[in-house]
Amino acid sequence: MTMKGVTKLGTMQLKVMDLDESIAHYVNIVGLDLVERVGKTAYLKAYDEFGKWSIALHESDSPGMVDMGWQVRSDADLDRFAARVADLGIDVKEHAAGSKNGVGRRIAFVLPTGHAMELYADMEMAEDHPGIHNPDLWRKPPHGARSQKLDHCLLYGDDLDGTFRVFKEALDFDLTETGFDGDTRIMAFFTCSNRAHDVAFVRFPEAGRLHHCAFKLDSWGDVGHAADLFTQQNVSVDIGPTRHGITRGQTIYFFDPSGNRNETFAGGYEWYPDHPTRTWDPDQFGKAIFYYERALNDRFMGVVT
Amino acid sequence: MTMKGVTKLGTMQLKVMDLDESIAHYVNIVGLDLVERVGKTAYLKAYDEFGKWSIALHESDSPGMVDMGWQVRSDADLDRFAARVADLGIDVKEHAAGSKNGVGRRIAFVLPTGHAMELYADMEMAEDHPGIHNPDLWRKPPHGARSQKLDHCLLYGDDLDGTFRVFKEALDFDLTETGFDGDTRIMAFFTCSNRAHDVAFVRFPEAGRLHHCAFKLDSWGDVGHAADLFTQQNVSVDIGPTRHGITRGQTIYFFDPSGNRNETFAGGYEWYPDHPTRTWDPDQFGKAIFYYERALNDRFMGVVT
Amino acid sequence: MTMKGVTKLGTMQLKVMDLDESIAHYVNIVGLDLVERVGKTAYLKAYDEFGKWSIALHESDSPGMVDMGWQVRSDADLDRFAARVADLGIDVKEHAAGSKNGVGRRIAFVLPTGHAMELYADMEMAEDHPGIHNPDLWRKPPHGARSQKLDHCLLYGDDLDGTFRVFKEALDFDLTETGFDGDTRIMAFFTCSNRAHDVAFVRFPEAGRLHHCAFKLDSWGDVGHAADLFTQQNVSVDIGPTRHGITRGQTIYFFDPSGNRNETFAGGYEWYPDHPTRTWDPDQFGKAIFYYERALNDRFMGVVT
Amino acid sequence: MTMKGVTKLGTMQLKVMDLDESIAHYVNIVGLDLVERVGKTAYLKAYDEFGKWSIALHESDSPGMVDMGWQVRSDADLDRFAARVADLGIDVKEHAAGSKNGVGRRIAFVLPTGHAMELYADMEMAEDHPGIHNPDLWRKPPHGARSQKLDHCLLYGDDLDGTFRVFKEALDFDLTETGFDGDTRIMAFFTCSNRAHDVAFVRFPEAGRLHHCAFKLDSWGDVGHAADLFTQQNVSVDIGPTRHGITRGQTIYFFDPSGNRNETFAGGYEWYPDHPTRTWDPDQFGKAIFYYERALNDRFMGVVT
Repeated sequence: MTMKGVTKLGTMQLKVMDLDESIAHYVNIVGLDLVERVGKTAYLKAYDEFGKWSIALHESDSPGMVDMGWQVRSDADLDRFAARVADLGIDVKEHAAGSKNGVGRRIAFVLPTGHAMELYADMEMAEDHPGIHNPDLWRKPPHGARSQKLDHCLLYGDDLDGTFRVFKEALDFDLTETGFDGDTRIMAFFTCSNRAHDVAFVRFPEAGRLHHCAFKLDSWGDVGHAADLFTQQNVSVDIGPTRHGITRGQTIYFFDPSGNRNETFAGGYEWYPDHPTRTWDPDQFGKAIFYYERALNDRFMGVVT
Repeated sequence: MTMKGVTKLGTMQLKVMDLDESIAHYVNIVGLDLVERVGKTAYLKAYDEFGKWSIALHESDSPGMVDMGWQVRSDADLDRFAARVADLGIDVKEHAAGSKNGVGRRIAFVLPTGHAMELYADMEMAEDHPGIHNPDLWRKPPHGARSQKLDHCLLYGDDLDGTFRVFKEALDFDLTETGFDGDTRIMAFFTCSNRAHDVAFVRFPEAGRLHHCAFKLDSWGDVGHAADLFTQQNVSVDIGPTRHGITRGQTIYFFDPSGNRNETFAGGYEWYPDHPTRTWDPDQFGKAIFYYERALNDRFMGVVT
Repeated sequence: MTMKGVTKLGTMQLKVMDLDESIAHYVNIVGLDLVERVGKTAYLKAYDEFGKWSIALHESDSPGMVDMGWQVRSDADLDRFAARVADLGIDVKEHAAGSKNGVGRRIAFVLPTGHAMELYADMEMAEDHPGIHNPDLWRKPPHGARSQKLDHCLLYGDDLDGTFRVFKEALDFDLTETGFDGDTRIMAFFTCSNRAHDVAFVRFPEAGRLHHCAFKLDSWGDVGHAADLFTQQNVSVDIGPTRHGITRGQTIYFFDPSGNRNETFAGGYEWYPDHPTRTWDPDQFGKAIFYYERALNDRFMGVVT
Repeated sequence: MTMKGVTKLGTMQLKVMDLDESIAHYVNIVGLDLVERVGKTAYLKAYDEFGKWSIALHESDSPGMVDMGWQVRSDADLDRFAARVADLGIDVKEHAAGSKNGVGRRIAFVLPTGHAMELYADMEMAEDHPGIHNPDLWRKPPHGARSQKLDHCLLYGDDLDGTFRVFKEALDFDLTETGFDGDTRIMAFFTCSNRAHDVAFVRFPEAGRLHHCAFKLDSWGDVGHAADLFTQQNVSVDIGPTRHGITRGQTIYFFDPSGNRNETFAGGYEWYPDHPTRTWDPDQFGKAIFYYERALNDRFMGVVT
């Protein structure tokens, strides 16, 4: 195995304000499938994911992120990462297998930017998993925006330097792109794969904020279809279709009914360890984020949940 | 760093019969840039690669592959892998930095299927590398078939089980897809990343054969453009545009002027360690290779260099 | 009005051998909607058509085409064209409004190649017509192969020169592309719009044969999706995805359960009256029909219904 | 011939302020080819046009449109349309063949909205015309934004009702889409083909204004490529990639160096005479023009040349 340690963003738990309306959004608009509904929580997954679920929606009185779960390669990685995170002075808790729907033993901690993060090695395989034996592309054609999988998330928080150390020093992520304002790091894009990013952070006065969670689409053609659908269904769109300078991804930002920002994301370069970290100057942050518009909108910097 | 050990297929050296004609093919058709020409050898790279070169063409009296070079994460990996390959009873040589154009210290061995393989940690950065500081998508629009990078190769050889052990046991690759005829493994697709494959092998009576080397395109749209170009330029095409069942890649197979098979490849799923190895039955090999045609052509099984 | 006279291929009536199975094909595979079923006949339409129906399926003991209906701009055109067709020595019948489902007064005749053809000016508007007032792109996302409309048909028959005269001299079509073998015209592609073709004929020993009826897709991306669907649903495919040299259309040929050939077609140039008729030599007919393969398959020349 | 009368927007003459800089824009950015340069005028064409030129650039001290030239089917049409335009009380002039570069006899008049318009039947065929005999898709791959042809123009002016009558009553265009504010017609989209529009007008306090001239691209994929190129080349972009509700076209608006707005346009539905005129309410004009944004920007209503 060459991919070792943390392998992917496997789950995100979100707070939503009306569960039925939110399920309708994530199923009919984003294109996920409902896996199961337990009380005030709904579990959903995209068609091309093997794990039991990737998005959990919890009915709440405010929007935002509950936590994110990252899959590691082996159970032993959990102990290794727990020790290394603790070495940075962060309190690490362990949870037994089964205490989270379908998820094995896991460790949990809070990032310096205030985001709850968990690592796990094992998750039950979904009943409706992609084909394994003489597989087709899909069991039925993708629906809604045709999301294939949970892709990445962008988080806003205050102690960006602290969180930077966790990903770089404790969790072995690589820094693909970054931006400074003078000596102050404003943005950090991390990968734990050969994708252009798996998670990103932006410095922000408040802790623990979610900027967006993103779902992978197949192509720029599907980004266009998503835009068609969002207008026809009157979805609140932030911006797009456009492209990011950072990652080169093709994108639409839009909002779920509770105001959590979603992204449909396609493309992005393949990152390799021989790539130097790409860097952006403050006067180019607009182009970095919205390559075609070459300017940030106010929402990008200020609207988070 | 999460991507450890072998990180990518960095170089392929090919034998060609007329160097000028071959350079014209790889530049004008495949879309590479000529980096330098040294005697009877030409070095080329794709626009989105950081390394000095990825394809070397050696004028020879027959076509085929000279060797393939794989980049590892760190210099220490070279010693580690050298020992592990030697443990399998394979003779491993070491070459000093600089003895191969722009490439650092490397280890070399011959796979049981007869293919020369080298590992290296360091390569000079290309002068014409992708942007690093406030980068654009490219310095000039892609040309020819718009190849972005060397993607993977498919090799044919006799001792498939021996080579299988090298990749699985010594080099830590993951097996993404495979196919058996009874108890005999016919095909093995390996990844050292989260791409659907980085190298693949098919059992064949003769050792050391090249089925194809593949170049990554951005999209199905660019696969279509490549097909347009190949017809207008009268390139010899094997098959395509079509899709593979294995990897789901969108593809055209075509031949360079010496008869070496090339591929333009787009798409392919993102592989993760929680994916079970996909398996194919012999009566589905046609669909596995050519998903739309659902049948192999004779050339796929027999024409190699 | 600049588009005068014959404006489009509005309807095709096909013979099918199992009505239920055929409805399933045209709905789930081609992507039409079932409008109504009357006895052993089913009427269907594509989502972007205003007319009540475009395809009628008649249960029969053999496949093939019953007739094709062409819409003209005004009722007066019917009398004008009836006279001009009759002037060519062809027997023309008139049918009263309402004797064909939703269709107004029409004239009917048999082409010298043996194909039944009708002209009509009026058709009832479909209940489920595209939006007119502040319209969206569609009322619900396209399904199946995402066909937008009936596009064109290709017919095989013996007296190609006779049928040529009808389209050129009586019906005012323009000849966009053609091919001769010596002095014998083999193929004729006609337009009554600024599309690259609305109907085409190929010389064939038997009269009255249907080569295919085609449905328009939005893009090469949707052609790829159609190919994905056809494999996953095990549809019998003739060839594709590929491109035509004639018209430049991007295409898949496939068969309905009765053996009638269908096409999904995208692209094609915009034709204008200042375009000279494009001409093809016999040794280039392969490239003319299958631009990427540059060779005809046996089915193209021989398999018709 | 079914396409009669006016068949297409064949030429546009534009005023530009720096001829060299403007040629560079229309060649390297839009993707046209320079045909010839005569004094302070440059003639250009797109690769898929048969006529000698489609865009003329005249060095001037202000931007804007000089005139637009529309091709008619036959020389006799010129006299017929001259009479009908004159019947509306508009002064019509005739110009002899050869007095405009490569263009035959023509008639000229000024629309009530203040735009100079000419009709001609004949134009010399370009030396570098698309292939006619066993043609390929193109002689060399498209460059710049990959424009295929001049597509349409949008003009702003005061006496919209007067110009409406010219197109509807004298020139036989069909009205595909329109929008009223109360009893006042604000927008009129006209076709002389089965394309969704060939010319459009918006009511505006000043006469004779050019909103944009548009060039046809092959696909949404090429619209994305154009956006990539425009950022990399630092072209001034108004909006896009986005889609129009009216026509459904996929689009980018951008500016030439003199401030004339250009558009790259792909898609758009096929219009037929059985389509009712689509209508838009004032509170939906945003969605009509920018389908994804669902709001007009100030530039759309105010920035014209």
